[in-house]
Amino acid sequence: MSNEGLNSFLFSTPEMTRVFSSGEQLRAMTRFEWALTCALESNGRAEPGSGAVLEQLLTAEFIDVNALILEARDAGNVAIPFVRQLTAAAMELSESAARPIHLGATSQDVLDTALVLQIREATQVLETSLDRLDSALLNQVKKHRHTVMQGRTWLQPGPPTTLGLKLAGTLAAMRRDRQRIHEAAERTLVLQFGGAVGTLASLGDAGEAISAQLARLLNLIEPVLPWHTQRDNLVVIVQVLAILTGSLAKLGRDIALLMQAEVSEASEERNHGRGGSSTMPHKHNPVASAALIAIHSKMPGLVSTVLYAMPQEHERGLGLWQAEWDAVPEAFRMASASVAYAIDIAEGLTADEARMQANMEATLGLPLAEAVNAALAPKMGRAAAHTLLRSAADRATTENRQLSDVLKQMPEVLVHLNSKEIDESLDPNNYLGSAQRFIARVVGDEDAYL
Amino acid sequence: MSNEGLNSFLFSTPEMTRVFSSGEQLRAMTRFEWALTCALESNGRAEPGSGAVLEQLLTAEFIDVNALILEARDAGNVAIPFVRQLTAAAMELSESAARPIHLGATSQDVLDTALVLQIREATQVLETSLDRLDSALLNQVKKHRHTVMQGRTWLQPGPPTTLGLKLAGTLAAMRRDRQRIHEAAERTLVLQFGGAVGTLASLGDAGEAISAQLARLLNLIEPVLPWHTQRDNLVVIVQVLAILTGSLAKLGRDIALLMQAEVSEASEERNHGRGGSSTMPHKHNPVASAALIAIHSKMPGLVSTVLYAMPQEHERGLGLWQAEWDAVPEAFRMASASVAYAIDIAEGLTADEARMQANMEATLGLPLAEAVNAALAPKMGRAAAHTLLRSAADRATTENRQLSDVLKQMPEVLVHLNSKEIDESLDPNNYLGSAQRFIARVVGDEDAYL
Amino acid sequence: MSNEGLNSFLFSTPEMTRVFSSGEQLRAMTRFEWALTCALESNGRAEPGSGAVLEQLLTAEFIDVNALILEARDAGNVAIPFVRQLTAAAMELSESAARPIHLGATSQDVLDTALVLQIREATQVLETSLDRLDSALLNQVKKHRHTVMQGRTWLQPGPPTTLGLKLAGTLAAMRRDRQRIHEAAERTLVLQFGGAVGTLASLGDAGEAISAQLARLLNLIEPVLPWHTQRDNLVVIVQVLAILTGSLAKLGRDIALLMQAEVSEASEERNHGRGGSSTMPHKHNPVASAALIAIHSKMPGLVSTVLYAMPQEHERGLGLWQAEWDAVPEAFRMASASVAYAIDIAEGLTADEARMQANMEATLGLPLAEAVNAALAPKMGRAAAHTLLRSAADRATTENRQLSDVLKQMPEVLVHLNSKEIDESLDPNNYLGSAQRFIARVVGDEDAYL
Amino acid sequence: MSNEGLNSFLFSTPEMTRVFSSGEQLRAMTRFEWALTCALESNGRAEPGSGAVLEQLLTAEFIDVNALILEARDAGNVAIPFVRQLTAAAMELSESAARPIHLGATSQDVLDTALVLQIREATQVLETSLDRLDSALLNQVKKHRHTVMQGRTWLQPGPPTTLGLKLAGTLAAMRRDRQRIHEAAERTLVLQFGGAVGTLASLGDAGEAISAQLARLLNLIEPVLPWHTQRDNLVVIVQVLAILTGSLAKLGRDIALLMQAEVSEASEERNHGRGGSSTMPHKHNPVASAALIAIHSKMPGLVSTVLYAMPQEHERGLGLWQAEWDAVPEAFRMASASVAYAIDIAEGLTADEARMQANMEATLGLPLAEAVNAALAPKMGRAAAHTLLRSAADRATTENRQLSDVLKQMPEVLVHLNSKEIDESLDPNNYLGSAQRFIARVVGDEDAYL
Repeated sequence: MSNEGLNSFLFSTPEMTRVFSSGEQLRAMTRFEWALTCALESNGRAEPGSGAVLEQLLTAEFIDVNALILEARDAGNVAIPFVRQLTAAAMELSESAARPIHLGATSQDVLDTALVLQIREATQVLETSLDRLDSALLNQVKKHRHTVMQGRTWLQPGPPTTLGLKLAGTLAAMRRDRQRIHEAAERTLVLQFGGAVGTLASLGDAGEAISAQLARLLNLIEPVLPWHTQRDNLVVIVQVLAILTGSLAKLGRDIALLMQAEVSEASEERNHGRGGSSTMPHKHNPVASAALIAIHSKMPGLVSTVLYAMPQEHERGLGLWQAEWDAVPEAFRMASASVAYAIDIAEGLTADEARMQANMEATLGLPLAEAVNAALAPKMGRAAAHTLLRSAADRATTENRQLSDVLKQMPEVLVHLNSKEIDESLDPNNYLGSAQRFIARVVGDEDAYL
Repeated sequence: MSNEGLNSFLFSTPEMTRVFSSGEQLRAMTRFEWALTCALESNGRAEPGSGAVLEQLLTAEFIDVNALILEARDAGNVAIPFVRQLTAAAMELSESAARPIHLGATSQDVLDTALVLQIREATQVLETSLDRLDSALLNQVKKHRHTVMQGRTWLQPGPPTTLGLKLAGTLAAMRRDRQRIHEAAERTLVLQFGGAVGTLASLGDAGEAISAQLARLLNLIEPVLPWHTQRDNLVVIVQVLAILTGSLAKLGRDIALLMQAEVSEASEERNHGRGGSSTMPHKHNPVASAALIAIHSKMPGLVSTVLYAMPQEHERGLGLWQAEWDAVPEAFRMASASVAYAIDIAEGLTADEARMQANMEATLGLPLAEAVNAALAPKMGRAAAHTLLRSAADRATTENRQLSDVLKQMPEVLVHLNSKEIDESLDPNNYLGSAQRFIARVVGDEDAYL
Repeated sequence: MSNEGLNSFLFSTPEMTRVFSSGEQLRAMTRFEWALTCALESNGRAEPGSGAVLEQLLTAEFIDVNALILEARDAGNVAIPFVRQLTAAAMELSESAARPIHLGATSQDVLDTALVLQIREATQVLETSLDRLDSALLNQVKKHRHTVMQGRTWLQPGPPTTLGLKLAGTLAAMRRDRQRIHEAAERTLVLQFGGAVGTLASLGDAGEAISAQLARLLNLIEPVLPWHTQRDNLVVIVQVLAILTGSLAKLGRDIALLMQAEVSEASEERNHGRGGSSTMPHKHNPVASAALIAIHSKMPGLVSTVLYAMPQEHERGLGLWQAEWDAVPEAFRMASASVAYAIDIAEGLTADEARMQANMEATLGLPLAEAVNAALAPKMGRAAAHTLLRSAADRATTENRQLSDVLKQMPEVLVHLNSKEIDESLDPNNYLGSAQRFIARVVGDEDAYL
Repeated sequence: MSNEGLNSFLFSTPEMTRVFSSGEQLRAMTRFEWALTCALESNGRAEPGSGAVLEQLLTAEFIDVNALILEARDAGNVAIPFVRQLTAAAMELSESAARPIHLGATSQDVLDTALVLQIREATQVLETSLDRLDSALLNQVKKHRHTVMQGRTWLQPGPPTTLGLKLAGTLAAMRRDRQRIHEAAERTLVLQFGGAVGTLASLGDAGEAISAQLARLLNLIEPVLPWHTQRDNLVVIVQVLAILTGSLAKLGRDIALLMQAEVSEASEERNHGRGGSSTMPHKHNPVASAALIAIHSKMPGLVSTVLYAMPQEHERGLGLWQAEWDAVPEAFRMASASVAYAIDIAEGLTADEARMQANMEATLGLPLAEAVNAALAPKMGRAAAHTLLRSAADRATTENRQLSDVLKQMPEVLVHLNSKEIDESLDPNNYLGSAQRFIARVVGDEDAYL
């Protein structure tokens, strides 16, 4: 039982846990060594057939993990005992194939490249779930494009908006986030292969050719030069994942606020016991929203770590590289969990339009005073309109009456606006400005909403 | 005397301090209001000539800063008293021009857009200095492409590299950083204009047209929809600046290590008292290197702040937006100082090749043992070669003699390699692998180095 | 106009801004040099009367700040040009008094000790305002110890609590925070005096005596040994201030949530335009609450910086010390602002008991179901009681009726509880458990509440 | 194979991994429920013998971890399924004992209190290893109190210090760190028990008595009031652990710098392959030093997380509490690893005094120029002495000769100082100021070193 295990329900998904499992890491490391042997073979540095021998070991079943960890404490990383175990396993199959294993490479080459290979898989997993999130959000935006609700600023009532516009903001941000992740991942899929100090010296003149071949075999970009102590691309990956969880935490924050009993305008799906309380059976906790907030709260710490780990010394650094090791996997695990919880919300979201209406009514029409002002100002002058409305608003507040009722009893208003006009100017549906146009841009049906 | 003042020598440049001064911020805010009035005028919402009136106020000299700050504590931001003061100043010029000021906008619209305008200027300032840094680094890379020095990993000696290759790593990273900053800035130059809750409701049907016109006048991108509580683009800006300072802190770290008296392979320029010590007049402190490290150490905190500030509530948030305010200016100020100090290093860097040579000799040729191994293995078998070299290396260490001397006295070696061949295989110049090819890729003269 | 200026309304108080102004820093630095000269004089290392000469310069009016900053860029810190200017100023008064200035000290001695002197003053300023906050919170706790309101978990309704208990939690935390700040400050008030490498070598045998005398004159603790590169005490100071702002941000978060229009149970004071909106005159924004959240959001970044800055090299470090410089002042400025905004809340807080009552009624008594359960279980068995209550709760929810009404129409309930007993068990006042006992412990009148 | 597993060699110790294993957490949770049942029993809320039944389950072997994690995703935490499983297991032993399980408590009560119990054990484990570190450092301080070496500031040579003084700085800091951890842990060992909203309402009048009894049984402090959303004590624990790793990272940084081939003044123990390189067999990597740096680089992120997680809403928060869950265990795991690596260094540290001597000679006596200055100034006047020494230092640098040789050939010097006096003033052993007094204070034998 590992401790990560107990809380993994919240901070990872089973699929992403798998991508960054020890097993997958060791398989990726083996894959690097296999490809290196093939590249050496192509360049006459390994005997024909060596690559084929290594291919038999790609499942990495030969690894004795406990021995690996034990040796790693003295070696300073797991690559050294890994190469030892791999060589021993290959030796049993073919001495000549075993001999050139790891030739030209250093520990960091295999660990960094294995990480890059895992990042590729992780990005695909994440993008698939982001597609699903995009669809789910898009459906909700379309469904609720006209669902009028109180806008809120500083957690106080403002003029109306629609649930569709609110969710369109998240959808647009998520799409930018996705684009950034895609671009960052593409730039990160770069081979690491430099040998001890980044010169590939032990390969003589053949370094560049072998490096190119290795990159081809692993389907990775060849770097301009090895990046042992230039970690910018990895920092970006962690960073863009943190921005994604930030955008989704905003969704979680909003939904949790809307789920408050006193607001009750929207809710996560109430299903199969989700969100039940041990002491309060009637309660429906915003479990997914809480998860989105919890996850994001851990991301800036990861970003800090990889940023602080940047100034790595000389050709290969001391300690800061190690500080990075878990950051990329953790960032992906948490991002995947964030997307999964966001999907739960986006697919299961329910809205209570009656409650939205009631909450707007409870603010007595005051957030719409500026709409009446706009109607009155041209007729009676701006200053007079403003004074009049302020006194109407005060009266509405003091007497707890709708602003419309107050206005309809003010002769100085009725001179300019009849009762129907007052109602129209105070109808939230008439005070949404460009909301539909903005939504249409996100949904992609702008023509329909001109 | 402000406290920021006393340490500003380290954490900003005069030019960037100017870009993000209060004065420039207030001018950018005035610029927003001027452009908004023009856009309102074009759309019949302000009287003809209103924009021309506002244009007279673009210097923002009408502002009473002390009153502004005093009022801001109650208002919660400086935009509210700013609009009040602007309106009063305009009123003195033309009542009709003053009336529509800020129409359709909310405080955050003016503050966010002003920040975006400052980011545009800051990015140009930064890119200009990055150009200069690129040139300086490029010159050093070219100059030292063949300057052979000890490679170092874990702060321990490794096979040789060249100073050119080391600096090429920084140059390549800096170029990626610059590219990221450029892309991020381009995406950030987006108008903020949404009114109270992001619907532009008070502009009725004209919101979209006015928004488009406003963006044109300010030469900003029109957003898909207002981004009051979607802060991802701003987070990216802070982040990519932090990555830049990270890459440059790595340069600082390396130079400071090379400047150690015991290493003395390279040095910041010794000039005009820079780096003098109050108690030790003979001393030459790596002041620019220290600055690069100091600056970067403060950036992750800024990144954390903007990441944590992402989940802003509903249409406009509570507190988290305010938490962001100083982060972007501070990030630019620190990035500019970092680039300035890096330019100092890159332009003034001196190398001591004799010392590089001596430091390599002091390691007795041991880091090159793998080169001899490569020469011997084909002739006597890999295992035998390895055993032989290990014993030679042990003897060299124990007796503090050059590995070449030891080898030349070993008959079992001389059978395979003559004295000249031993020397050649232990010549650092012959063990640089692909170093020149990597440098050529960065310098852009690959053809010359095939 | 400095940029810090514009936002200083939010992130500092005038008094703390003064404590950490450049002027105060320079005066504290002068004070260190004055005390050092006195200590040298007492030990025969400065001529009699030298201290008296330095005393005339304690106002630090001799400083040319612009020249100081200009020189600092080359020197790497402001202490070097400061000593130069101080010596020049003293020279005009007495050459012999000027000569021993700074003898035995290094730049870091004067900068660190000056910071410590500022910390002493800042702590006193902060503690005075914490006293006021304590009183204000205590008054509210006492006033509202019986003000019953909905308890809330996961932002969902729970059993009742009282406003007094809620605020007592903040008061108890704030007192722990204050105690930690007091202890941390006491441990931080340690002289820094070690000379170039922390041995006081240039003072020969007299170092210890001079150091002791210097500490006495400044009323600081003598360190076991100089702490140039052991920064733990300073890190603690920043940290405990961050914990204080965290406790107060929790208060801000709660008040902002209670101020939501839909909740409206408590409010910051509505006064003199505080919290007004530029577009929505009827609105009352939770400005102080927002400030508490904004301030705290910036503190973890400062803590990160000082933690990362800990591993300073050898006798005096490279860059990491500089990274610290602004952190302690910023932490105090922000803590002072946090306390000031918390005082605003604590002194002006108003509660709406009718609304509290109404909000509890709106949850239909469901959060109190466990109270009825407790009454029924002994009489009809736990399982039966639970089943019965669940069905009653379901009916109450579906029919939107009070749980009490539903229960009173269930014969199987009435067998065991009469109408009055049902009402009593569903009265929030009867379901507060140990709330009054907990409050009494905080208020300190436990005997009265047994 | 868990991914944490692969890198656990670096970021934890087996013993601390055990303390915070899932198994121990579940046992601590069971212990809470057992003690609660006992306390209920004492207060007549559980039938006699119930506690004894629960006692049989303390090994927590009844738990199905997979089912637990699966259910936790819907429940939002592991406590809810845990209580379900515990109740089921108890039910098989005794229905009446099973019934009151968890009565009065909420999920957070059991999770928080279990964490506190683990903190107690973790602190004991850590303090035991800190004792060992104290002894090892103390031995080295004593052994090397007179081992003279170059002092270094800004990574540049300064006047001499001793290895003992350098290590005494770390020892003194580590003792302060230990004291802080001890105090923080003592204050953290506080029961969490408040029920749904912190009132213990479901226990009626008995809440306080049951809480007191529960605290006694678990040997924990009773809180003034429940601290569900007041997390300051936990934040402090993470923070003081981060300060410890910071102090030890400074040790690691120094040792790694001293191990550089060009410096070679001190070294981690070379044993059993520790620090070997896969490509460079002659190399001895500073593995423990690197680990100290790597570990500390991850701590500020944890501190950030717990600080940001402080403003938890109302009676129990939404998401921020969850964000904390792994921080305390991770902080202890990393601190334990840090101490273990520091012990490796402190117990195995070797010093090369000849190299220290040689490195000092290589600086030509220049860092001691101020000692000669002190000898000459009284005889020829301060200004003249300074001018003379500057010219001597310039000549020594230019001609690469010892300063003493240069001085001995200057007639204007020989008038005042003879050859022996020159040598004495340039002997590093004579320029250590108060070093021995400072060491004696740390070692505790001040009387012997007066």
